[in-house]
Amino acid sequence: MLDISQFDQINPPARLLMGPGPINADPRVLRAMSSQLIGQYDPAMTGYMNQVMALYRALFRTENRWTMLVDGTSRAGIEALLVSAIRPGDKVLVPVFGRFGHLLCEIARRCRAEVHTIEAPWGEVFSADRIEDAIKRVRPRLLLTVQGDTSTTMLQPLHELGDICRRHGVLFYTDATASFGGNPLETDAWGLDAVSAGLQKCLGGPSGSSPVTLSPQFEEIVRRRKCVEAGIRTAEHADGDDEMIYSNYFDIGMIMDYWGPERLNHHTEATSMLFAARECARVILEEGLDQAIARHRLHGAAMLAGIRGMGLAVFGDLEHRMNNVLSVMIPPQVHGEQVRQMMLNDFAIEIGTSFGPLQGKIWRIGTMGYNARKDCVLQTLAALEAVLNRLGFATQQGEALQAAWDLYDAGRLE
Amino acid sequence: MLDISQFDQINPPARLLMGPGPINADPRVLRAMSSQLIGQYDPAMTGYMNQVMALYRALFRTENRWTMLVDGTSRAGIEALLVSAIRPGDKVLVPVFGRFGHLLCEIARRCRAEVHTIEAPWGEVFSADRIEDAIKRVRPRLLLTVQGDTSTTMLQPLHELGDICRRHGVLFYTDATASFGGNPLETDAWGLDAVSAGLQKCLGGPSGSSPVTLSPQFEEIVRRRKCVEAGIRTAEHADGDDEMIYSNYFDIGMIMDYWGPERLNHHTEATSMLFAARECARVILEEGLDQAIARHRLHGAAMLAGIRGMGLAVFGDLEHRMNNVLSVMIPPQVHGEQVRQMMLNDFAIEIGTSFGPLQGKIWRIGTMGYNARKDCVLQTLAALEAVLNRLGFATQQGEALQAAWDLYDAGRLE
Repeated sequence: MLDISQFDQINPPARLLMGPGPINADPRVLRAMSSQLIGQYDPAMTGYMNQVMALYRALFRTENRWTMLVDGTSRAGIEALLVSAIRPGDKVLVPVFGRFGHLLCEIARRCRAEVHTIEAPWGEVFSADRIEDAIKRVRPRLLLTVQGDTSTTMLQPLHELGDICRRHGVLFYTDATASFGGNPLETDAWGLDAVSAGLQKCLGGPSGSSPVTLSPQFEEIVRRRKCVEAGIRTAEHADGDDEMIYSNYFDIGMIMDYWGPERLNHHTEATSMLFAARECARVILEEGLDQAIARHRLHGAAMLAGIRGMGLAVFGDLEHRMNNVLSVMIPPQVHGEQVRQMMLNDFAIEIGTSFGPLQGKIWRIGTMGYNARKDCVLQTLAALEAVLNRLGFATQQGEALQAAWDLYDAGRLE
Repeated sequence: MLDISQFDQINPPARLLMGPGPINADPRVLRAMSSQLIGQYDPAMTGYMNQVMALYRALFRTENRWTMLVDGTSRAGIEALLVSAIRPGDKVLVPVFGRFGHLLCEIARRCRAEVHTIEAPWGEVFSADRIEDAIKRVRPRLLLTVQGDTSTTMLQPLHELGDICRRHGVLFYTDATASFGGNPLETDAWGLDAVSAGLQKCLGGPSGSSPVTLSPQFEEIVRRRKCVEAGIRTAEHADGDDEMIYSNYFDIGMIMDYWGPERLNHHTEATSMLFAARECARVILEEGLDQAIARHRLHGAAMLAGIRGMGLAVFGDLEHRMNNVLSVMIPPQVHGEQVRQMMLNDFAIEIGTSFGPLQGKIWRIGTMGYNARKDCVLQTLAALEAVLNRLGFATQQGEALQAAWDLYDAGRLE
């Protein structure tokens, strides 16, 4: 028999989350989520849904009508777009440069795609030429890319890929979960057909809602797979002429009909997460998207300067690093997990570990969303230096903080 | 160019939500959601995850180890269980007595099941014999049931079905989204292999998290379909000997490995929704689950007494109605949508419309979760009577409120 008195009121410990995400939510977002619920067809609710569409069009830099939320974590947004476009047997090409490229392969494989990959060593990205060569060879229906792969902290340039995809008749998707809001992303200018993201990185919200956008061409493909469920079907509904989508929850066409003027019931919108998503967008757009990206660039650069000032090496191609998360080589003298434990237990600061080939070799330190701030950067550097000193790793006393501070005082990036 | 100054701070209008759900969230749940985030592998976070498992075991009345949350709306929980169990070509049997039975068919069809149905007229439920006869005829691998179908407000008795399923070697699933916490559900005693639910009905939370539980037998089926993604696969991971699950996000085996001691990264848990789910469970278990069900029964009965006192008829088999939502026949003299509009615009009270064959014929009035309270029942009855009078539908002045009040004063149910 469960003794309920053993379960106290929720009271998470204070933490400064400086890992690869989730990071601390902006308090404004937390307050928005504590708003009382309204009915799913209340004019106030559908009004908020329409506002969310407009706000995310601005963040995705797109005119795409279908810009909305998938109710689930970032991975739900990826799967909704992939399963809605990929028919069994379709060829997809995935340039893999880290764990999240493998994830796209994995999801595509579950959609029964014929998955082709090209691989770059972890810490590098692909040239547009290399991707075009693979497209010519594979002739895929979709190109599935990751913009910022947090496992390596590298940022794949996407701006040339839209033209290449258009020339070869390939649909162009990117997973912008980790990069969105902290690095440039131009959905329309770069010719992207579909993009998915999340709230828990540069947007300063919690995990659990995935903003997505899709081009008219992507919409057309989805519409051809339309399939209305019997319980709400009426005479005016006709199915499409292509194979059905092998998911109900992730059928992006049904999600469109729920967000569109038809308001055809599908899921019950996760109202509190929608309130969160709306406030995340409002916070960034009040700052200005370009300014928010510049802020991520500044604090990422300050963290890099500080880490180098401490005598630590960084991992990967710095020309193509994400603004919002940095891979730091764990020096051989210290045990990476011990450092992370001391950071968490004694300073209440969380930094990240890594996956696969980089496990135990790098820490990942984020500067994103609400935590892309000078105080967070300086506190993290001070704590890390103290912990390393405690464990016998000598640093040039004070260099780290001074280097970061110098960068801030210069007030500009080279 | 979007003018962000046009997007005010979130400020939903005050509403009393007396429809079929979502209803007003318990303010404690809203406060829990406004707690700051912590890292997904922070001991405090994994501790909360373990607590959520224990709390929902108590609510599901089960010893099932695998009792956890699927990150998405109730429909996500349904699809996760169905796609993880159903292999293409598997036979499933769905007793359909409303819209949500059709939804189970629809989701099973997307899983490429061979779907067999038996149908009851809307407003009725099935006898155990009728279901057993169909099982003998169809020989399904799974029986997919809806416990409370909000489209008709009927509650399917489930207590005899577990034995039947066991005798015929059939897996037994129920969708308890709408009934959970307000009507008896005995996962273990009734022999259920899998149950999914939601927060936005009798639990008094927002939509966006789906509690699920699965039996050891269901776990075994899922384990045989195991398939570890390349990005996190190590030498110790072996795939199962059965067909893979055709979804990554909804692969319940991967979700188990994330909630279990392996803590194998899958999605990033939707922390704020987990805080909500924890508080929903805590609120009910502090009251006592039996007491919470009795409360739903009392206020449902008071609403029924009031509606009848007003001279309105109710729809469906009253022996098998859900405690938490009532179908009220719209009298021919009034226009159902006009009444709903006046209730919403002039009293800020939302009551529900219906789907399919019942559209325009019934209203659905809920008494659930935080709104299963005497003041909510009496206010709703008073408002509805006034609106009907305004539109020329005569009621016996005062009867409705007096009947409900009498029921409360008697302090017991016959």
